[in-house]
Amino acid sequence: MKALWLQDKQLELRTEIPIPEPPTGEARVRVLQAGICNTDLELLRGYYPYGGILGHEFVGVVDSGSESLVGQRVVGEINAACGKCHFCQTGQPTHCENRTVLGIVNRNGAFAEYLTLPIENLHLVPDSVSTDAATFTEPLAAALEIQQQVSISPNQSVLVIGDGKLGQLVAQTLFLTGCDLLVVGRHPEKLQYLAARGIKTGLVDAVRPRQFDICVECTGNPEGFALARQALRPRGILVLKSTYAGHLTIDASSLVVDEITLIGSRCGPFLPALELLATNQVDVKPLIHSRFPLDDALKAFESAQTKGTLKVLLEMSSL
Amino acid sequence: MKALWLQDKQLELRTEIPIPEPPTGEARVRVLQAGICNTDLELLRGYYPYGGILGHEFVGVVDSGSESLVGQRVVGEINAACGKCHFCQTGQPTHCENRTVLGIVNRNGAFAEYLTLPIENLHLVPDSVSTDAATFTEPLAAALEIQQQVSISPNQSVLVIGDGKLGQLVAQTLFLTGCDLLVVGRHPEKLQYLAARGIKTGLVDAVRPRQFDICVECTGNPEGFALARQALRPRGILVLKSTYAGHLTIDASSLVVDEITLIGSRCGPFLPALELLATNQVDVKPLIHSRFPLDDALKAFESAQTKGTLKVLLEMSSL
Repeated sequence: MKALWLQDKQLELRTEIPIPEPPTGEARVRVLQAGICNTDLELLRGYYPYGGILGHEFVGVVDSGSESLVGQRVVGEINAACGKCHFCQTGQPTHCENRTVLGIVNRNGAFAEYLTLPIENLHLVPDSVSTDAATFTEPLAAALEIQQQVSISPNQSVLVIGDGKLGQLVAQTLFLTGCDLLVVGRHPEKLQYLAARGIKTGLVDAVRPRQFDICVECTGNPEGFALARQALRPRGILVLKSTYAGHLTIDASSLVVDEITLIGSRCGPFLPALELLATNQVDVKPLIHSRFPLDDALKAFESAQTKGTLKVLLEMSSL
Repeated sequence: MKALWLQDKQLELRTEIPIPEPPTGEARVRVLQAGICNTDLELLRGYYPYGGILGHEFVGVVDSGSESLVGQRVVGEINAACGKCHFCQTGQPTHCENRTVLGIVNRNGAFAEYLTLPIENLHLVPDSVSTDAATFTEPLAAALEIQQQVSISPNQSVLVIGDGKLGQLVAQTLFLTGCDLLVVGRHPEKLQYLAARGIKTGLVDAVRPRQFDICVECTGNPEGFALARQALRPRGILVLKSTYAGHLTIDASSLVVDEITLIGSRCGPFLPALELLATNQVDVKPLIHSRFPLDDALKAFESAQTKGTLKVLLEMSSL
């Protein structure tokens, strides 16, 4: 089969990769479509050591390994857990100590014609959810993780920093809580998608210091972190939703004096994400920048790496 | 009156300072005894800009400004709040935007014969609590702040890093929750005070990585922070209980991947602290390293700055 292979910071479209056989407990999925995420770009830059097929946001059709699922459209949770460790036993499989992660850690990913995943990782896509929309299930679930970690209520002021792919989904999901939300970024043309939904938006220099109960940092750069920190009230919560290249320097004493909480946030729940898509409470269409066939995956990555690009999709099969 | 004055990183025992007149709403307190805290040492090193009388841990006798309190032994909360800002109106006076702080921010402190504080900041010391013990009310309250911020239960594994003044109080208070507690430090002679109470202790190199639900960092140095971070399980909580000289460098991406929570922790509740002292649930006697009269305050600071010293007390009046 064809697949996009990452090795030593180089991408290569390989055509002679064997179609994977699903191990016991796993299903094989014929990939329909996949999305390029910032994590893919970071893996390509070598921030984490990974070699193999890239990609973890996908929609596909089950092809073998599960009689009840064959022929059905699915999305899949990306952490394949051992089921035995402390975290698996306590209902936290995304933190499994022995996990592999689709296209990220020791498991071939979704930029390929086929992938395999544990059957329990797969979720049926409701008929009312288009394949385009379903491709956003994984990042939408990640956005919803914030609400699993932090209680957000209508009387709280919340700042989202970043108008990129992740910031857009985070903003749309937080808006549904009824909180007093402001989203800031550097791209008026992206902020307007949110403004069109009734969300307050502004440029980054509009943020007043020490005004927000919760700040969600979705840029992954130190300037975004600094802005989030200074925008927080004492006893505020700073959610780190992006990974960072390299290290961050923080004024730890000020965190103590102001009793600030920092909280890292990663993968989230798929079912509520699918529900939001099925009920049209979140609109992902404006986030699609462009589409490429798998054969043009290298061009797709060039596009995704261009500053200001939102979601770039790879189409594996005719839909 | 006599008082220990800080100006431009220099301490000076001044003898000609006017006895303060309590403004409306404040009481004047004749100080009996005060404790030297690491924050005092940091102010002396110039980490924060402050000029005036140093000191914020004290026991005294009310001398004027409150008829009902005159002649009674009191301790005092150190944040003098405005009563009007968002934080005062929402029951968070320790974060008052306009606060002064005894011996720390724009308010003369306790290393003096007299001080003034708002009457509502003062708490009567129960007769069963010695003046020695009561001098620890403020740092003990700060230790208890952890339990106001983080729910700690018997099935959780908790690591306290640091066997100094603050670590000792934090350890004693956390031990009362019944959690699975380990305290590590570099000083066997200090750890033995805790071991004698039945608390598990060890040297810092005994900490195994990724084992603890909660780590409380009480050293204020980057090595302590690094140890706390690596000792945490995914989804663990790292409580920053000390201020830090300068900045900390953190691996923010690992906080995201492991969904770690960092939380800064400062001043805490006085009444539960006095209750613990009154019921002998916490023993502060072993923490007293030495005592000096106010006249020898400079020698007291020399002693407090010696590595390994626990609490140094200043005695203002004959008890």
